[in-house]
Amino acid sequence: MEKKIITISRQFGSGGRSIGKAVAERLSIPYYDKELIKQVAEKTGFDPEFIEEKGEYAPGKTFLSYLSTSFGMPGGMMGGMSAMDFLWVMQRQVILDLAEKGPCVIVGRCSDYILKDRTDCLHVFIHASDEYRAERIVRLYGKTEKTPEARLADKDGRRSVNYKHFTGRDWGACQNYHLCLDSSALGSEQCVGIIAAIAEGKQF
Amino acid sequence: MEKKIITISRQFGSGGRSIGKAVAERLSIPYYDKELIKQVAEKTGFDPEFIEEKGEYAPGKTFLSYLSTSFGMPGGMMGGMSAMDFLWVMQRQVILDLAEKGPCVIVGRCSDYILKDRTDCLHVFIHASDEYRAERIVRLYGKTEKTPEARLADKDGRRSVNYKHFTGRDWGACQNYHLCLDSSALGSEQCVGIIAAIAEGKQF
Repeated sequence: MEKKIITISRQFGSGGRSIGKAVAERLSIPYYDKELIKQVAEKTGFDPEFIEEKGEYAPGKTFLSYLSTSFGMPGGMMGGMSAMDFLWVMQRQVILDLAEKGPCVIVGRCSDYILKDRTDCLHVFIHASDEYRAERIVRLYGKTEKTPEARLADKDGRRSVNYKHFTGRDWGACQNYHLCLDSSALGSEQCVGIIAAIAEGKQF
Repeated sequence: MEKKIITISRQFGSGGRSIGKAVAERLSIPYYDKELIKQVAEKTGFDPEFIEEKGEYAPGKTFLSYLSTSFGMPGGMMGGMSAMDFLWVMQRQVILDLAEKGPCVIVGRCSDYILKDRTDCLHVFIHASDEYRAERIVRLYGKTEKTPEARLADKDGRRSVNYKHFTGRDWGACQNYHLCLDSSALGSEQCVGIIAAIAEGKQF
């Protein structure tokens, strides 16, 4: 396989997580999601649910939101670091270690940035039209008080702020990825096939 | 073929133009570049060199630059429109007409935006690392007084302003394209193959 490690970043509702899982199955390599969270939980003592939420999403839509979360969270300040910074450091180390272990698919958690200096990675971003994503999140996660559009904007906004805060880069800017795919236009199955074929070094 | 029309937008120096040409050859469909400019020249009376430059690049790096070019250019004001707006209207019409004629590849000129409402298009963006592009433009176009990095920033900056001015969208934002490829990471040949395979509706 030409590219051992595949990182998948994705807009909320685009199906990036399912695509990542299917790519891992097709290539018979591990897919790190719950396992990653479990390892971060062991390193930090944080609750897995806390890691799942806070390891990828800013607490609010502004940089200032990070300041207000330095206190009053599990762990509070740790060796001079806020709980969020501590989580970032530990999560980063787990991702670097998992990549060292061998071929795998890692979804989200700034893994494209964390592994940017490795030459054996394929960094992918999955996006989709608002209509496709709105329909998909209501079908998969049910309705809430918020409109689907507001839920998309909130989740993506917080992912974006988190990414910017820790990497200094713009989330979803195509320059950060080797391959960006519109899952609503191409179809999930096709996205899985394209990613797997490129990772396998197949010539088209 | 599943997608009849392929539009290719590209960072300066990324090789997007060559990739577009090779895709057209592989699919045996027309590649519109000089032909497009020739048709716009016939419609407008503008010089082809003027169209090649002004049909895709803002005169400067700010929106205000458009104001300062409303006068003193070939044609001056035309029926209340500035020369740049007149060129946009004519170029847009030529692109719409070419797409009506049948399968083709069109490079640049906001063609992704102009054809966004057609469902038979594949919109592609080609980008590459700064190092790859700097080396490539010096090799292909020679050295100039400006550094390669300044030339990249200038060309892309003016493409970006032109795109924003006429479409209201951000140039190179992955949401505008079905497929974004890093030609420096994947290789030009591989990019050609991926685009052609997707356009042909091949299942991976």
